[in-house]
Formats: sequence, structure tokens, C-alpha cells
Amino acid sequence: MSDKKTSNAMWGGRFAAGPDAIMEAINASISFDKRMAAQDIAGSRAHAAMLAQQGIITDKDAETIREGLLTVLSEIESGTFEYSTALEDIHMNVEARLKEIIGEPAGRLHTGRSRNDQVATDFKLWTRDQFDAAISGLTALMGALLEQAEQGADLCMPGFTHLQVAQPVTWGHHMMAYVEMFARDRSRFIDARTRMNESPLGAAALAGTGFPIDRDLTAAALGFDRPSANSLDAVSDRDFALEFLSSASICATHLSRFAEELVIWSSAQFKFVTLSDRFSTGSSIMPQKKNPDAAELIRAKVGRINGSLIGLLTVMKGLPLAYSKDMQEDKEQVFDAADSLMLALAAMTGMVGDMKPNAPQLETAAATGFSTATDLADWLVRELGMPFRDAHHVTGALVAMAETNGVDLPELTLEQMQTACADINENVFDVLTVQKSVASRISYGGTAPENVRAQVKRWKAELA
Amino acid sequence: MSDKKTSNAMWGGRFAAGPDAIMEAINASISFDKRMAAQDIAGSRAHAAMLAQQGIITDKDAETIREGLLTVLSEIESGTFEYSTALEDIHMNVEARLKEIIGEPAGRLHTGRSRNDQVATDFKLWTRDQFDAAISGLTALMGALLEQAEQGADLCMPGFTHLQVAQPVTWGHHMMAYVEMFARDRSRFIDARTRMNESPLGAAALAGTGFPIDRDLTAAALGFDRPSANSLDAVSDRDFALEFLSSASICATHLSRFAEELVIWSSAQFKFVTLSDRFSTGSSIMPQKKNPDAAELIRAKVGRINGSLIGLLTVMKGLPLAYSKDMQEDKEQVFDAADSLMLALAAMTGMVGDMKPNAPQLETAAATGFSTATDLADWLVRELGMPFRDAHHVTGALVAMAETNGVDLPELTLEQMQTACADINENVFDVLTVQKSVASRISYGGTAPENVRAQVKRWKAELA
Amino acid sequence: MSDKKTSNAMWGGRFAAGPDAIMEAINASISFDKRMAAQDIAGSRAHAAMLAQQGIITDKDAETIREGLLTVLSEIESGTFEYSTALEDIHMNVEARLKEIIGEPAGRLHTGRSRNDQVATDFKLWTRDQFDAAISGLTALMGALLEQAEQGADLCMPGFTHLQVAQPVTWGHHMMAYVEMFARDRSRFIDARTRMNESPLGAAALAGTGFPIDRDLTAAALGFDRPSANSLDAVSDRDFALEFLSSASICATHLSRFAEELVIWSSAQFKFVTLSDRFSTGSSIMPQKKNPDAAELIRAKVGRINGSLIGLLTVMKGLPLAYSKDMQEDKEQVFDAADSLMLALAAMTGMVGDMKPNAPQLETAAATGFSTATDLADWLVRELGMPFRDAHHVTGALVAMAETNGVDLPELTLEQMQTACADINENVFDVLTVQKSVASRISYGGTAPENVRAQVKRWKAELA
Amino acid sequence: MSDKKTSNAMWGGRFAAGPDAIMEAINASISFDKRMAAQDIAGSRAHAAMLAQQGIITDKDAETIREGLLTVLSEIESGTFEYSTALEDIHMNVEARLKEIIGEPAGRLHTGRSRNDQVATDFKLWTRDQFDAAISGLTALMGALLEQAEQGADLCMPGFTHLQVAQPVTWGHHMMAYVEMFARDRSRFIDARTRMNESPLGAAALAGTGFPIDRDLTAAALGFDRPSANSLDAVSDRDFALEFLSSASICATHLSRFAEELVIWSSAQFKFVTLSDRFSTGSSIMPQKKNPDAAELIRAKVGRINGSLIGLLTVMKGLPLAYSKDMQEDKEQVFDAADSLMLALAAMTGMVGDMKPNAPQLETAAATGFSTATDLADWLVRELGMPFRDAHHVTGALVAMAETNGVDLPELTLEQMQTACADINENVFDVLTVQKSVASRISYGGTAPENVRAQVKRWKAELA
Repeated sequence: MSDKKTSNAMWGGRFAAGPDAIMEAINASISFDKRMAAQDIAGSRAHAAMLAQQGIITDKDAETIREGLLTVLSEIESGTFEYSTALEDIHMNVEARLKEIIGEPAGRLHTGRSRNDQVATDFKLWTRDQFDAAISGLTALMGALLEQAEQGADLCMPGFTHLQVAQPVTWGHHMMAYVEMFARDRSRFIDARTRMNESPLGAAALAGTGFPIDRDLTAAALGFDRPSANSLDAVSDRDFALEFLSSASICATHLSRFAEELVIWSSAQFKFVTLSDRFSTGSSIMPQKKNPDAAELIRAKVGRINGSLIGLLTVMKGLPLAYSKDMQEDKEQVFDAADSLMLALAAMTGMVGDMKPNAPQLETAAATGFSTATDLADWLVRELGMPFRDAHHVTGALVAMAETNGVDLPELTLEQMQTACADINENVFDVLTVQKSVASRISYGGTAPENVRAQVKRWKAELA
Repeated sequence: MSDKKTSNAMWGGRFAAGPDAIMEAINASISFDKRMAAQDIAGSRAHAAMLAQQGIITDKDAETIREGLLTVLSEIESGTFEYSTALEDIHMNVEARLKEIIGEPAGRLHTGRSRNDQVATDFKLWTRDQFDAAISGLTALMGALLEQAEQGADLCMPGFTHLQVAQPVTWGHHMMAYVEMFARDRSRFIDARTRMNESPLGAAALAGTGFPIDRDLTAAALGFDRPSANSLDAVSDRDFALEFLSSASICATHLSRFAEELVIWSSAQFKFVTLSDRFSTGSSIMPQKKNPDAAELIRAKVGRINGSLIGLLTVMKGLPLAYSKDMQEDKEQVFDAADSLMLALAAMTGMVGDMKPNAPQLETAAATGFSTATDLADWLVRELGMPFRDAHHVTGALVAMAETNGVDLPELTLEQMQTACADINENVFDVLTVQKSVASRISYGGTAPENVRAQVKRWKAELA
Repeated sequence: MSDKKTSNAMWGGRFAAGPDAIMEAINASISFDKRMAAQDIAGSRAHAAMLAQQGIITDKDAETIREGLLTVLSEIESGTFEYSTALEDIHMNVEARLKEIIGEPAGRLHTGRSRNDQVATDFKLWTRDQFDAAISGLTALMGALLEQAEQGADLCMPGFTHLQVAQPVTWGHHMMAYVEMFARDRSRFIDARTRMNESPLGAAALAGTGFPIDRDLTAAALGFDRPSANSLDAVSDRDFALEFLSSASICATHLSRFAEELVIWSSAQFKFVTLSDRFSTGSSIMPQKKNPDAAELIRAKVGRINGSLIGLLTVMKGLPLAYSKDMQEDKEQVFDAADSLMLALAAMTGMVGDMKPNAPQLETAAATGFSTATDLADWLVRELGMPFRDAHHVTGALVAMAETNGVDLPELTLEQMQTACADINENVFDVLTVQKSVASRISYGGTAPENVRAQVKRWKAELA
Repeated sequence: MSDKKTSNAMWGGRFAAGPDAIMEAINASISFDKRMAAQDIAGSRAHAAMLAQQGIITDKDAETIREGLLTVLSEIESGTFEYSTALEDIHMNVEARLKEIIGEPAGRLHTGRSRNDQVATDFKLWTRDQFDAAISGLTALMGALLEQAEQGADLCMPGFTHLQVAQPVTWGHHMMAYVEMFARDRSRFIDARTRMNESPLGAAALAGTGFPIDRDLTAAALGFDRPSANSLDAVSDRDFALEFLSSASICATHLSRFAEELVIWSSAQFKFVTLSDRFSTGSSIMPQKKNPDAAELIRAKVGRINGSLIGLLTVMKGLPLAYSKDMQEDKEQVFDAADSLMLALAAMTGMVGDMKPNAPQLETAAATGFSTATDLADWLVRELGMPFRDAHHVTGALVAMAETNGVDLPELTLEQMQTACADINENVFDVLTVQKSVASRISYGGTAPENVRAQVKRWKAELA
């Protein structure tokens, strides 16, 4: 598409070209399905070997076919293969070239299969690679976050709700929140990969075949766990694509959340983090300006991936069994979403690896906004036995007093505190600093540095 | 909302009511989150018991609280509870009423937790019920399909691609294709339920707590597998809702495909199936008209569920940690999607249980369109050793001959056949009938009746 | 839905209730379409008057019907009307009650129309009110923004790109950017309202009618511009709903952008704006904390509205003509989106009216980050005739020098400046302050205060 | 993307390539924004002319720049231009090449503008062409439908609701229903094009400029109606893209409805229409099989376009002013949706032009299912003065009688009819044939042939 000069010329040209050009343009898939060439050839090689094993074709024909396919693959890999739009798709392009190379035996390859199970097999193999790529990409990203968490297990920063300072947390704890999210994504991709790993090959057009094929053999050769159990389903199922897309959408949502934080944290007003130059762009006249372009683009990718998800869900709505041509619209959605996801994961991993938390700024911000007021209330409950709702009331009065006096909570005197509640004693000051606050939150899952370190250790072991 | 008379009056009234009414209307959630009342009370009862167990509150207070909460629950169940919009949400409504009933100890309940982990807990419990309901609903639907498959294991019908007759298949095989789809849905819901079954309770506002709470205890009491490992994540995670919605969307897509087939099959032109009156609506003047309303409504539900999925994905995009008020928009999407999905599953189960395949019409249609041409081509390959592509060519010639003569393939004479290929012998007629065609497709996953019966048996065992 | 206690009980109960209950639950629409009662009655009254005018029924019957319908309306408005789910929808509920009140003539009302054109008419009338409400709501919001713009025409603030300070702009100019956006929304709703204002009434079931009805008469009585021109289209068209939803999605996107800014501007780190207490929620223990709840909820509404849009687009995909029951899913999407949009517009209008820009903070922030570097570059081009790309280079050098010296651009001496470019003279200092910068940007559409005031004047006249 | 061989190799390679390669891959837009080369050059030429006109640059420089840009354009058009990813986007690629060609004056071109307004201008110009292409494409499609309608104004076919035969309609009337739909699409694109036709050029980075530019001049030169009124809005507005996408989604929904009908009508069971070979694909072994591939692909395109719409809506959600890098994700969505829409319109126009209604099959189907029962009921009301609800009751009895006797309505004897209602006379038979039925429906918008012809005439005049 990229070589079209102007849009008007394009459409004028295409419309003028008449029905045949229009039909070719809407019908042919070779412009995109050639990305599945390696999968197509792998599937055909497995099929040929099985046909010989079962005595459906001769060993000699099988060997000729399998060698010929390797030749085609090497032509494709070296860029010398000539794709033909008239041959519509990757399957016909490969088979036609095979026939040129090996002659008559090429015509025996398509025995006991059909384009419907062939395309399902190719596309499943391609998508399965994407599940693996996503799992690897997430593992790498989690690794980068674990490093940040370990380095910053003790570093205090404000914890926000509603983007308002709420309570102090640790940098490490914040990083570990994303480790949890990406771990769920990883688990989701792993589950989905297991579910989808059944081979459609041999389902033929829609009804199975009368040839004595061995689908277990081709399934095993292609790394599938088993053949799929129903031929009508096998050729019309695109669940694996939908589940890849929905898992990608949820993962991209997590990425967008972190990216948003990085954009906000990079602002002159927050200055919580310094992103590396490698993932920012500068301005020729404002050298201090460093735009967080990579973070913004990662944030945006969720739109694109959600769009692909809705695109394919809409395509599949209401399609009767078995194959309908509508399904040809499945590939580009997955191709585009996979490209976007892998790129976003790689860019985020790079950014996380490079970024530097701005410790003084974080620590200062953590102490603002009476962020330890909850610690004070908890102390009143724990040490003085107040009901929680009453403790909240006393705390509110003391915060108001501090605000009126223009000081922070730890700067109130004991006497001032006792005007709100006579039983308060000097031990209270132990809980009013940011460091004490985070250190105290040792409930399972809490922000205390020792918790963070334990979680880092757990996850490193898990991913090792 | 339903009691508003006219839209103009409504908005005029609301706008005129001033800022306070507007804020209350946009901010309060009690109108919908009261659906989680039972979950809220279960969570609070578990929390109170744990607080006592850990010595944070007295056993007596805990008992009073737990009893009081049961009283509140019974008021809600009996319909005597008075909800207050001023109290905003279900949590405050329950706690306020608890205080009226038991007085001071009510104020101790909120120790070591916050509304953020409380709402996450409530909503997870509610959603977990929906995973269970979906799994049950799918099991029931699969059961109904298995009955249809068993009854119709031998019944021939046309297999379609592009809604054009392609090859004969069996009714049972077609039903089993949906069993496979719904089995994947079921597996998806089961995986997701396992992944989400971690307790947020005790994550507190966002940072954990300094109280010596035991999160394992409350997790176990509420049926969770473990407490969640990071408090920031625990209060801002809505993956369980997103994964419910995405699994529901894929399931609803399958339902829409079957519903579309039922609508088409019910038309006067197809007449493949008779739906029961219970799931159709009639017309007072056209007694023969039976509109497949339930099928159409099931087909439509995928729109609604996809909408909920996109709705929540969009809400969650780019939200910084931890809790933001945006997340209040999570519940109605899941409520609505769950209601739609369960209703669609129930209606489809009912329809499948009641529907009657129209055997004569199906068998006749199966034999039209030279539907056994592939069988002929396969015979040429198998018996005469032709390459598949050549066999296709011969078959094409014979089909053309039949079409010219206005007959079907089995009605050609042997002599006629031999004009296209001299080696054809009378055994060829063995594969040209619909019954022979389906019986021959015994490759694993193929449409042969014996395959169908084996799959029915396998699935019945699996679901038993 | 709200009175269901627990989800499990609900589904268990419903499933147990058997097919009839399931069919009623999925089929009946009265639980939501009763919101169109006033529209239904208005349509019927217009229809009855026309039937009499054309001599199809007697004047007496028409009068009886029209009076009876008013009685039904008053019962509905006063809350005494008893809805029946068995009667399925609002149309049958109203007609059945009418028959109870007036007897036999009620049976003559349905002459020359059908439920298909009736529901299309009702829903169009309802939706048309929403177009009007959106237009009014946008006008009010634009009014509030114009006030802010006028008050803050001279107030300087940082203009951001990538959330990094780029150049100074005025508060008024920033407000006016949203006036432009909401003006486009308003224009979009106005266009769509014009397009949809054709009456379906009299299209009958799908084919028109042989009764000598006058569709112009009913169209005029109901405020439509004309009757729709094709009966098949009239009963199966839901474009008006789709266009309402897509216009609402774009409008909600604008609202989400402004809401995001308000959330960021309200943070302790930015402090650009103070929202009124009326649209914020506080915290009992952190009195300084003011959560921008209304802004967050407005930001979230775009998710819900996008979901409704996708919901209905998906429902309508691939529906053959004419009416299919799938279309019953149209109303709730529009009801919910309209409610969300109107509420969001009202809340935003209230917030904008109340909010106070924090002038000192804005002015200080505007001057940071060498925000007038572009002004310096422009001066070099304008006064010294440098090519723009060269001017950028010189400016970069000077900014780097200022940064090294820890000063801002206006604090460099003339001598220092001349080391980068000997021709620079003291006039340069005229363009380096924030006030001078914004005052200079008088190109049409630029941020200069006089431009802002001119635009405010233009828009006030436009909306007057 | 198309030249990547295997997905694993791809990602492995990219990840291994390190941060710089990742950043380049996510950041550069030249791979897609080169489609806007002609628009970029047109914008720059207009800008240069204006700069000279206003005395900001010399006439000589302007002329050199404008000539140089034409040279660049011809290099691009002839395919000799070498794109550089290091130069990131089309703007920098063009400017860098311009500098190579003309030297120093190239540096003066960027005076008084910025990349932000430049890209907005380019993209608006590109998208405006798509509005025009959509309008043309819709006009052509309406023309093809009008021909079909005119030819088939008298041809009877079944009108369906719920895909069940309801009442006879004419083929022409059915075609005209789509004319109405596509006319609304056309009107929607026209309105949106008018709304978007404001020039962003001269808004500069975000604040306008101090150079004495004349934005009216560049606006006029580029065919815009006026310059946009607010610079912040001008560089961050993507409404024109969103409105193109939402209009395209609604249009694609209409196309999907017609495509669905064509798929169903082409089935062996319906046989309502014969599609031309040019828009179908055959099967080598089943010569009678003609898969409606183009119709299926058109039906599927709505998924893709809805996906693009949701994609961009999601990207734009919550973006603060002014430009954010997220917006770079705008183009591919519009490029892809425009390509899909134009192709679908062209293919549908071709199919409609070629298709042949199967008259005997349509007429026969029109008469089945007691399709004139409503005509009988109407006759009872009109001729005998029965209330409509009573007439329905009598008709129901007669249809049941006919069904019991295995005849159609017109085959009942007068005596048989009089058993249900003694007043029925022989005139009743005048309304019971399909032809009489459609001829009688002369209410405005009704299906009568004379109505169809009048509407064809009206639309031909409108589009002339």
C-alpha cells in the first residue's frame, strides 16, 4: 500500500481498472499471508511424511516433496521467491513453485487435506509463536521490574489514589504491583497456548477424509498436543486468535497504565523519574526538554490492539459453519496486534531497565499531604483501643490543627496532640515518619521493604 | 431509571436540581452495587472473625458484629432494608445499618481494611459466582447438544462452506462442533476462575496495614486460594472482570453462530429444523408463522457483551495506581454481561433440547449440489493412484457432464464415466451416495457416525 | 435487576423456572421500553387523529381513543399504571389498558400501522429528545467555558506537548480550545438530528398499507420534517441510534480529555486548579485531600458510551431486511449512553463553573523550562533574517548556556548572547518574558489575549 | 512487514538489536506516513507562497522552494525517492531532500509553522480526499441500485421479518431501501466533510506565531473553507478522523446487511439471485458451486472498520492538550478503514450491477406462507368496517382453515370464507394475489410499483 502516491489517484485508478481488479484486490490474501510461509512449508512437510508413513504416497514422492519444499523455503528466505497475486494466497504460491521444481509429485501433496485445514494449521502455528513471544517478552519485562524493585525496596514515594497523595509506599512495592499484573498476563498466555495447541491438519475441507491418514503423527511433528476432535470445528474455529487478542488487550491495558505513570512522572511538575535518552526524543531548541515518546506510544498501542480484538469478534459474529470467506480477515488483525504488543513489551522493558527514580523528589513528595494520617489513626486504635471510626475523627482534628498551623503532622507538639485526645503519648511520634510508616506495613502484600524483598525473591525463583 | 416519564422532563429536572443533585447522580453507586450485598456481608463477617482470632478486637465484639450483619442480611433478603443514596454505596449502607442495630462495636469492624479492598473483595466474590454460573450453564448446554448428537449420529445433512453445499456431514457431527466450541469456553472460564481466586481483603487502602491481620484466614473463609501478594495491585486490579468479559464475548460469539444457523434453518426456504413454540413467537393472523425470536435475541447478545468488554477496557486504559474513581464503572458492565450471558445460555439450552431436525429435508439437501464430488476424486486417487490434482480435473469433467445431462453424479452410467477416465470401474458407485460418503470419513475428527458416537461417549464421561 | 439478592440464587431460580420463564426473561421488553410511554401515546394520538381526518375511522372513535390515551398517560405519570410483563412491551401495555378504559374503539387504533413502525416511531421520538438534550447540554457547557475564558484571557499558563512544558499560552486560550471541540460536537448533533427527523409511522409491518393514510399529517403532528420514503427501510433503520451513539462517543472523548487535565491539574504536584467541594469528595482523616471524583467519573463515561456504540454496531451487523428481533437490543444502549452523556455534560458544566485557576502557580510554571526559546528563535528570523533552521541552532546554544549557568533565558546578559550570534541586540529581551510571548502570538487562532477576547465575543454572539 | 520470514526470527532479531532498534521501530512513522507525501508537498508549497506574499521570505526564495518541492514530488511519483527511517517521518524526509536540491532557502520554509500543524494539515487533506472518495463511491453504488430498482419495479418477492416470509414486496422496493440507507451515509459524509474543512496550518506548535502570516491565504490555497480558530485545538484535534471512521462504520454496517442477504439469497435453498462469476469464486471439482466470496468479504469489512474506530477512540481517550505522541497512531487506522471502505463500495457496486434476480423463484416464494393474510384483514376492516383486532381474528381462522385443507388463501371458496364471517363477498379475491397485494400498497413509502418508479425518478434527479 505504501507506494501509492495520492489517495484520489489510487481510487480513481482502482475503480477504473474494472471488476477484475476490484475482485483481485478484495479477494487475494498473498500480500499478507506470505508472513506464514515458513509455517505453510512446515505443515506440508509434516503432511508429506505422514502420507508416506501411511502408504498413501510413496516414500520417494514424499522425499522429493519434502526436499522441494526446503528449496522453496530457502528461496523465500533469501528473497528470490516471486509472489504472484493471481495465485491468491501463500498456499497456492508455494504449491505452484513446488510443481515447477519437482513436477508431478507436487500434485500428490494435497491428498487428504484441503486449503481449509491447511490455512487453519498455518495460522495456528504462526499464532502459537506469538504466544511464545508474548510469554518471553513478559518474562523479560518482569525481570527488569524485579531489578528496579530490588534496588528501590527501601525508597519511599507517595502512594496515590485519585492521583492525590494517600499514604507512603516504597518504589519497590510499586514496581512489584506491575510484576503481579504482568504475571497474570503471562499466566493467561500460557493457559491459552495450552488450550489452542490442537492440530487442525487432516480435518480436510470440513468433513474429514476417507484416506487412512494419521493425524496424531502430523500433530506431533508440528508440536501440537493432539489433533482437534471435530473437523467442522477445526476449520471454522478462530478462538485461538480471539484469545490471543483478548489476552493482548488486557496486557496492553497494563502497559498503558504504567506508560501513563511514566508520562506523568516525567513532567516538570512531578520529576519522579528520569527516562533514558534512548527512549525519549529531544527538541533542537530546548535541550532540557525530553519528550517521553516511547511511553506515549506504548500507551497508545492499547487502542490498536482493542481495535483488532473488536475487529475479529465482529467478523466472527453470526458466521454459520463451516468455513466462510469472512474468516480471511482474521490474519491481519493478529499480525498487527502481535507486532504492536511485542514492540510495546520490548520498549517498556528497555525503558524500565534504563529509568532512574529521582529519590529526593520521591521522598519529599511522600511526606507531603499528611500522608501518615492513617498511621496516626491506626496507632490510636492499636495503642489506645479506640474504635476505628472514632480514631478517624481524632486524626481529622489533628490534621486540621496541623494544616492551620502550617506544619506537618510530626511537627505538632505532644501538648497540641493531647488537646484532641488526652491519652496520646510520645510513642505516637514513632509512627509519623514516612520510613516508619512503610516499615510498619508488614501485613502480607503490604509495602514494607522486607515484604518487597521477599516478593522479589519469590518471583526470581519462579522465573528462574 | 425506569420510572422516568419523558426524557426532556428528566434532564430538565435534573439540571434544574443543581450541582448537588448532579454530583449525587454521578457519584453514588448504591443503585447498582446493592447487588453485592450478600458478598459485602460475607466479607465483613470473615473480617470480623479474623480480627478476633488475631486479638485485634474482642471475641464478644466480633460475635456482636457477625450477628448484626446476619440481621442486616435478613432485612435485605426480606426486602425491608431501606437503601440510602446519601450513604453512596452498599458498604456504607450496610455499616450504617449495623451501627443502628449493634451500636459502638460497629465502629471496630473497619479496622485493618478500607473501602478499596472491601469493594475489590465484594466484586470478586460476585464475579466468581458468575464464573461458576457460566461453567454450569455451559455444561447444561453441552449436555443438550450431546443428546441431539446422539439422536442424530446417522442423520445426513449438507455441510456448508460459504453457505453453499460442500459435502455431506451428519447432524451429530454438526452438533459436536458446538460441543467443542462450548468446551473451550468452559475451559476458559475454569482457567480464569483459578487465576482470579486471590483475596484482596486486607490490602487496605493501598499500602497494607500495620495491624497484625491474618489474610490467609479471611482468604480461606471466603473460599479464596490465597491472599493477593501486592496491596497496590490488589485494590486496582480489575483483570478478573476483564477476563470474565472477554471469555463471555468469545462464548457469545459461538452462541451467535449457532443462533444464526437456527434462524436460517427455520426459514421457509431451508426448513432444516423446527423450533418449539416455547422459544418462538407467533402471529395472530399467520398461524404458520413462527418467528425464531429467542434465536435472534441470542444472536444479538454478543453485541451487548462485546460492548461491555470494550467499555471496561476503555475505562481501565491509562489509569495510574492505585484506586481511581473511574473503576466504579466496572460493576454495571459485568452485571449486564453476566445477565445477558446466563440468559442466552439458558435460552439456547432450552431451544436445543426442544428442537427437531427435519430429517427428510436434510437428507434431500445433503444429496444436492454434487456433494459427493470430493468422494469421487478421493476414489480416483485411492483406487487408481492418480495425483490429487489430476483427480480433481477428472471429477470436474464428470460433474460438468452430469450437470449438462441434468442428473446427479450417481446417475451417470459407467460408460459415461469412462469417457473421462477409462480406468474407472463399477466400484466407484460405492462412494457416490451420501450415506457412503459420511460413513467413509473415519479419519479422527471426521464426520462418520461411529466417530460421532465415540465423541459423544468421550464427552459424556468427561462431564459426568 | 436491583432486587436480586445473590447471583447464584438468581440463576438457579431462573433456570429452575423452566423454559417459559426463560423465554419471558429474554423476550419481554417492558422493563425498559416503558421509558418510551409518552412517545408511544403521542404517536398513537397523532395516528388516531389522522385516521379520522382520512375517514378511516369516525371522528367520534378518534376522539374517544385520544381521550382514553390521555387517561393512560396520566395513570403512567402518576405512577398508578400497572405494567404487565405478559403483555411484553409498552405498546401492548398501553393498548390493553386503553381497551379496558374505552372498549371497542381501541381495536380500531391499530389500522394502517403495525408494531414495527410504531416502535421505530417511539424510539425515534425518544432519541430525538436526546439530540435536543445534548445540544442544550453542550450549549450550557460552552457558556461556562466562555466565562472561564473571558476571566482568564490574560492569565498565563504553560502550554504542554507530551505533558512537557512547551510554550506559554493563556488560560483563556486553553478554555477556548474546548469551546471549539464542544462546538463541533454540537454541530454534529444538530446535523444528525436533521438527518433523522423523518417519520416511520405508516410504514406498517414492512410494505406500507392499502389504507388511504396521510403520512405527512402524522409526521407534522409529531414534529417530523417528512415521512420516510421507503417502508422496508423505515422499520429496519437504526441509523439515528448509531449516529447518536457515535456523536456521543466523540463528545465523551472530549470530556475525557478535559477530565484528565482536571485530575492532573488537581494533583499536589501541579496545583493548577482548585475544584469546588461540590464536585469532589473528601476524606475524613485527610482534610486537605480532595478527590476529583466527578472528573474521574466523567473520564470513565467514555468507556461506557463507546461500549454502547460497539454494542449496537455489532447487533446491526449483517441483519437482513426488514425487522429482526435482534433490533430489540437497540434501546438500552441508547438509554444508557444518553443518561451517561447528559450526566457527564451537567457535571462538567458544574465543575467548570465552579473551578478556580491557581494564578501564581500557573504563571510560575509558564516561565519554566525555557518556554520562550521559540520566541527567541522567531526573533532571530524576523529581526536578523536568519533561516529558521539556523535560528534554531543559535537558540539551542543559548538555552544550553543558560542551563549551564543555572539561569533562565531572560537572565543571560547581552554579551553572553552575542557569543552565540554577534548581531543580537538588546531588543531581544522584549520577547523573552511569558507575557510578551503570549501577547505576540496574534496570528489568527493564536494565544494572544486579544485573540481570546475576540473569540469569546464571536461565540457568545453565535450562541445567543 | 511483509518481508519478514518467521515471527520468531523477527522478534528474536529485533529484541537482540537493542534499544536503538526498538526505539526506531516504535517511533518512526515514515513506513506509513509516506502515503501523505503529495499532501505534505501541497501544504508546503502553499505555505511558501504565503510567506512570500506576506514579506516573511523573499519571492525568490519562495519560488525556489516551490520548484524544489515539485522536483521532490516527481521523484516520489516516479519511485526514485529514497526514504530514510532515520529521518522518522514524511515531513523530515521531504525537507531534507529539498535542502539537498535547493540548499539554504530550504531552511526558511519552516518559518511560522511547526511539525504539529504540518502533520494535522497533511492528514486532514488526506482524509478529506477519503470523504470525497466515499461520496463518489456511494453515488456510484446508489446508481447501480437505482438501475436494479427500475428493472425490477414490478417484480414480486417475499418481504421478510425474522427471515420468515411476511408480506409480498417488490424487488425494486427492496433495492430502494438500500438507496435510502446509502443516501444517509452520503449525507453523513457530506456533513462531516463540511465540518472538518478548516485549515490547521499556521497554528504552529500549539500557540500560534508572532510572524505576520495570513492563514486565510493558505487555507484558500488548500481548498479549506477557513482557518481553524484555536491553535491548541488545531494541533490536537482528530475529530475529522473519528468522524470519518464512525461514518464509515455505519456505512459498512449497511454493506454488511446487503452482503448477508446476497449470501443467503445465493444459497441453493433460496436461489433468489445469481451473482456474476466475476465476484464469485468457483471450485475445480464442483462447477455448479459459486462461492459468494466478494459478498462475504464485504460483510467482514465492518469488523475491520469498527476495529479502527474503537482503536482511535481509545487512543484519544484522556489525552491532555496539546499534541501527544499517542496521536501518531491515528493514521494507520484511517488508512486501513478508508482502503477497506472504498474497496467494499467498489465491489458491492460491481456485484449489484452484475447480479440477476431469479424472477420465477422470487414470485413463487412471494406467494407462499399465506403472505396476503394482512391484505385479507385490511379488506375486512376497509370493506366491512370491522375493528382491526377483530379482522385479525377472522383472518386467523381463515388461514387456519386453508392450512388444514392444504391450500393457499385464494383457493378457499367463498362459502368456506363465509363460515368465518358471513359478510365476506367475492370482491375479497381481488386482494389475495401477490400482484394485487403489492399494487395496493400505495401509501407514501409503500411497496407499490408506481411508488418505486416515483422514488427512482426522484433519486435520479437528486444525484444527476
